[in-house]
Amino acid sequence: MTELRTLKVALLGCGNVGAQVARILIDDADALAARTGARLELSGIAVRNVDAPREVDLPRELFTTDAELLVKDADLVIELMGGIEPARTLILTAMRNGACVVSGNKALLAQDGPTLYEEADKAGVQLSYEAAVAGAIPILRPIRDSLSGDRITRVLGIVNGTTNFILDQMDSTGAQFADALAEAQRLGYAEADPTADIEGYDAAAKAAILASLSFHTRFALEDVSCEGITAVTAADIAAAKEAGFVIKLLAIAEKLTDAGTETEGGAGVSVRVHPTLLPREHPLAAVRGAFNAVFIEAENAGELMFYGQGAGGTPTASAVLGDLVSAARRLVLGGPGRTETTTGHVPALPIDASITSYYIGLDVADQPGVLAKIAHLFAEHGVSIEIMRQTIHRDADSNVESAELRIVTHRAREAALAATVEAVKGLDVINSVTSVLRVEGV
Amino acid sequence: MTELRTLKVALLGCGNVGAQVARILIDDADALAARTGARLELSGIAVRNVDAPREVDLPRELFTTDAELLVKDADLVIELMGGIEPARTLILTAMRNGACVVSGNKALLAQDGPTLYEEADKAGVQLSYEAAVAGAIPILRPIRDSLSGDRITRVLGIVNGTTNFILDQMDSTGAQFADALAEAQRLGYAEADPTADIEGYDAAAKAAILASLSFHTRFALEDVSCEGITAVTAADIAAAKEAGFVIKLLAIAEKLTDAGTETEGGAGVSVRVHPTLLPREHPLAAVRGAFNAVFIEAENAGELMFYGQGAGGTPTASAVLGDLVSAARRLVLGGPGRTETTTGHVPALPIDASITSYYIGLDVADQPGVLAKIAHLFAEHGVSIEIMRQTIHRDADSNVESAELRIVTHRAREAALAATVEAVKGLDVINSVTSVLRVEGV
Repeated sequence: MTELRTLKVALLGCGNVGAQVARILIDDADALAARTGARLELSGIAVRNVDAPREVDLPRELFTTDAELLVKDADLVIELMGGIEPARTLILTAMRNGACVVSGNKALLAQDGPTLYEEADKAGVQLSYEAAVAGAIPILRPIRDSLSGDRITRVLGIVNGTTNFILDQMDSTGAQFADALAEAQRLGYAEADPTADIEGYDAAAKAAILASLSFHTRFALEDVSCEGITAVTAADIAAAKEAGFVIKLLAIAEKLTDAGTETEGGAGVSVRVHPTLLPREHPLAAVRGAFNAVFIEAENAGELMFYGQGAGGTPTASAVLGDLVSAARRLVLGGPGRTETTTGHVPALPIDASITSYYIGLDVADQPGVLAKIAHLFAEHGVSIEIMRQTIHRDADSNVESAELRIVTHRAREAALAATVEAVKGLDVINSVTSVLRVEGV
Repeated sequence: MTELRTLKVALLGCGNVGAQVARILIDDADALAARTGARLELSGIAVRNVDAPREVDLPRELFTTDAELLVKDADLVIELMGGIEPARTLILTAMRNGACVVSGNKALLAQDGPTLYEEADKAGVQLSYEAAVAGAIPILRPIRDSLSGDRITRVLGIVNGTTNFILDQMDSTGAQFADALAEAQRLGYAEADPTADIEGYDAAAKAAILASLSFHTRFALEDVSCEGITAVTAADIAAAKEAGFVIKLLAIAEKLTDAGTETEGGAGVSVRVHPTLLPREHPLAAVRGAFNAVFIEAENAGELMFYGQGAGGTPTASAVLGDLVSAARRLVLGGPGRTETTTGHVPALPIDASITSYYIGLDVADQPGVLAKIAHLFAEHGVSIEIMRQTIHRDADSNVESAELRIVTHRAREAALAATVEAVKGLDVINSVTSVLRVEGV
């Protein structure tokens, strides 16, 4: 047997994922060499504090605080530091030195992807980041390669485990948001500062990455309109449940054509994150707890779904190692890297131009003619009603009756819906608009 | 803009899938060129009968009966003829001439894969066959690339839409096998001669391909033990349903280690196809009708599932085109092809060595002590019982009582179970063994 070439691997960051990546590189060295055709030698791990406690017991001599020096001597660089700087500069340095880079840094990729891709192209190296979206689930490579001969029309993703866990808790126990969040924090599914998850920012970064690959066009974080789950109430969940829906925080990227009634906003891609009603029989509705799943609709392939663990050190390490082995094979076998195609040139559409169905909850006066008034107003704004259901409540003590009206619309443009809701608020028979939620999968 | 290079694409076969591939190559030529960096020119379509009716209206001048001539002048060859010859010879010729090959021919790959892979390696060309397993679902590339840094431990696949449709019909309507098959034939989900589907041969070929890629070892059709669904009765389905299970025809490939009680059969991979009970809450249980799904367990990634359309001209064409674009990119950018790794060297295990739980239905005499006798006999054979449930039926006319006993075992080796069942048959209190079915996902 011939002597295998050795490829030096620099690891930047040693948190949950990094520590597992290091462990696998050491423990599975032989299997990785057999699959790659080269020995992958972990040359060092750059961290801020060499003495910090780690999840995995790793040789102390691997640790260094000099990330720059480590990167300069590496064939492959794994960036798992997170944040913008110094990750960005280190990745650029690595690529300029001819190293292939594997990153899990969704924030950086969503914010500054174009700069990174351009540098990778210029240097002829591979930049891959499967771990940045949906943890262990192979989703970016299937979109980029397997579906490269098809046209993706829509991507719906449950890409944030924290919010899925919270919404799932609310759905199964009837808990309020604050209580479900506290439970998620207690179980380690939510961080002490949960802002990035619950406000949808984490999902928005992933939406930008998914949209970019799906539509062969570079979308950045500012192209994504984003609404988190903090305003979702137990009452919203209960009403959705009663109507046969479940509420999920979805990352959505969909192409709107200029056919038929969908012209106003122009042809382009709507990229957004918001709480969404899904019919309970939709494949995404069954994705429970901290699991992730991405549902894709393509012109030829039809409906596809990819399901698995969206977070966690070991699962996410699997995605990092997959990218690393692919990059190493490329280095061994030769041939330039290729990170993405950007020949799509479709514009990002504002949220106003997005088209979806809506669920609207109204607290209305219990008077004859109310339904007709409301229906008329919807029609005036060009929003067609699919389902309208009224429930009368009588307070046993006061004997006062109140009526709750629930409306599910046909697909309509966001701007038209917003105008309708404003107009509804002005009706004298309306006490309050209790919820406005978007619906997919119907 | 620079002139794009042209790559000649030869299409062999023009059935459901081939016709859609041709249509897409013509209709989406510009998009494919943008993504590939080369124009993909359909240079001809080899068929047996030029005048046969096609699903898609295609330029008549593209058709030829001279497949050999067509192949000799192609950069990329798409083989969708099916069968062993002349497909095999044409693929070998194409690769020797330096063409990359995309095939959807599961029978050929399962039977003679090693010859084809070796020729591809020798010629330095790419051989890909995503369409051969689970239609539109990107599954082979994720296994080969995305999971290349992980260790797959188990693959469970619903990879035959015909049998899934039949079992689904039986489950939802209570129909007998023959009626459900007739319905599937009427709706076009089953062929006039359904043997390859219902006897499990189609799934077995796919199991061999999945096992080969998952365990980095070449498995052939003869390594797969195969049992179809013809013996599954409405009573089996009803009993399974009552116990909270659904019956699916699964293609299974799993690594058995030599740890603990699982030593006897030795370490290796069990590759098999058989009707299997799955708990109704298992992700695969929700895969309805003609859909396919592949469930993967990997050491680091944990549980993953890939879901989508497993057949049909247009969906399967999406998988063919994905392979074609990848191969074309490789030709444009340079770099050798790489089809598979075979460094696993794990032996295929016989069905006797496989380990699973079992569901056993028994028609027994309604006498005291029967349960104890049976339990004792299972224990003697080292098969541990998880659930034992007896139901007494009284025939209203004859007033004769009969008892039905349903047993779910813990995981046991097939050989031990077979010996147990043989011994049970010899008991005087046993009228008959009504069903023996394997259980996964518990």
